[in-house]
Amino acid sequence: MDAGQPEFGKIVVFGTGLIGGSFALALKAAGAVEEVVGFGRTPSTLRVAQELGVIDRAGINPAHEIGDADIVLVATPVAQMPEIFARIAPYLGPNTIVTDGGSTKGDVVAAARAAFRGHIGKFVPAHPIAGAENSGPSAARRDLYQGKKVVVTPLPENNDERLDHVKRAWALCGADIYELTPEMHDRVFAAVSHLPHLLSFALVHDLAVRPDADLFFTFAASGFRDFTRIAASHPEMWRDICLANRAALLGELDSYRSQLDELREVLDQADGERLEDIFGIARQARREWGSS
Amino acid sequence: MDAGQPEFGKIVVFGTGLIGGSFALALKAAGAVEEVVGFGRTPSTLRVAQELGVIDRAGINPAHEIGDADIVLVATPVAQMPEIFARIAPYLGPNTIVTDGGSTKGDVVAAARAAFRGHIGKFVPAHPIAGAENSGPSAARRDLYQGKKVVVTPLPENNDERLDHVKRAWALCGADIYELTPEMHDRVFAAVSHLPHLLSFALVHDLAVRPDADLFFTFAASGFRDFTRIAASHPEMWRDICLANRAALLGELDSYRSQLDELREVLDQADGERLEDIFGIARQARREWGSS
Repeated sequence: MDAGQPEFGKIVVFGTGLIGGSFALALKAAGAVEEVVGFGRTPSTLRVAQELGVIDRAGINPAHEIGDADIVLVATPVAQMPEIFARIAPYLGPNTIVTDGGSTKGDVVAAARAAFRGHIGKFVPAHPIAGAENSGPSAARRDLYQGKKVVVTPLPENNDERLDHVKRAWALCGADIYELTPEMHDRVFAAVSHLPHLLSFALVHDLAVRPDADLFFTFAASGFRDFTRIAASHPEMWRDICLANRAALLGELDSYRSQLDELREVLDQADGERLEDIFGIARQARREWGSS
Repeated sequence: MDAGQPEFGKIVVFGTGLIGGSFALALKAAGAVEEVVGFGRTPSTLRVAQELGVIDRAGINPAHEIGDADIVLVATPVAQMPEIFARIAPYLGPNTIVTDGGSTKGDVVAAARAAFRGHIGKFVPAHPIAGAENSGPSAARRDLYQGKKVVVTPLPENNDERLDHVKRAWALCGADIYELTPEMHDRVFAAVSHLPHLLSFALVHDLAVRPDADLFFTFAASGFRDFTRIAASHPEMWRDICLANRAALLGELDSYRSQLDELREVLDQADGERLEDIFGIARQARREWGSS
């Protein structure tokens, strides 16, 4: 590669907020991209993105922008992706690679397969783990992905070259790259992120609907505060995530309900030994994780 | 009351650690007590308590110390209380008031009734909410209870004078005094403290026993960190609390399991409206609580 030549030519970003905008800024800061073109639903947002230098210009018509793009990043909420995939599918060029920034993968892959069909090999799914809320171009930062994890979830149809391109782009953003299958990705995030949110919402809701809810909240303390912090998360966003990852989340919820059934039995039997055993295994795992 | 005369004469404290030691130090700092006598299982701990000025002297024989005490605070782990109640029961004087610092009340009251029988009116149960771990006399601080909550859970047999004495002692420590029945106390703390601990232990245990546990922990992030912070709590202590408050905890656990059953149904039906409704109610309650 020529020293003066950026690694990527044109990058197209759908959604120029935290995820997409930070991707663009990071590649620009690395001198790795010639031009960034942004698409979005709101013209004023695209103007701000351009003023802030997040994108070089706003795209008007995908027919003119997709064919010669090296990477197309779809960084919108997952619910908007099927429509965007359908809009760009007719225009994929021989070297175009499409990737995404969605926090669930099974549903995104299904939408991509439906839109790209025989060209699905050009779609390399990914999940950058860096802030869940999309807060517009002014939230974008070129160092957002520095030391953060990006999970790439390759499809059997992805060849090595395309996979390497996407991994390379995220590496240039400073991220640590992991690989999981889309199915395993969804199971893991159902277990460590989506389920805890559901459980935390459930506890607060169970208290909030009681006639004497105030009494309970009066005596809630620091343990409750930590456990329920994520119950202050955005209801619509978490509705969408839970629905998007419904199958994996139901599996994890059922595993957890079985765990609670066992704990109920142990408690009912006043089986102190087993109770301490369960608590002890949990504590050790939590401490080892917390210190890592 | 004479200006130069402390409000209480002799205070006897069983367990001179964080809870009992701080009670003694606070009353001394308020000039409200003539003499503090400490009992404990470990002579060296009592020596340290005396060197630190937490107690004036170590008691040897309850027969010589209980009859003329104004307040006897039993601030040991709840599991030790039945034995202590039995040891002091024969020596209660006409003006002796016994109280405790246990974090569950139904079991403590039952133990007190068994030991004090016709004298149960002299026992005024209480729960100071200020740190769960008993860390010895060096952890005791005279300002521990400043602005903290103390829940007094009166018995029908307590007369106003005795109740007022206990409330007055805790008020002199700087605490805000609340009153609940023992049953309501146990329900409230099962819901806002014991159940969240159980749920947090359960989630980490459910992951920790999987063959591929490491993979899950690798992608756990800040939401998981908050939710599971209390799963690093002390297994023996929480075993004891869960067993001590078993009846109320089972009730709260069943209420929560019903809530999860509903959420499972809502998720299975992909009922986004209801899901958002539940999340929204929880979020609002959590935010109102968090800002109060």
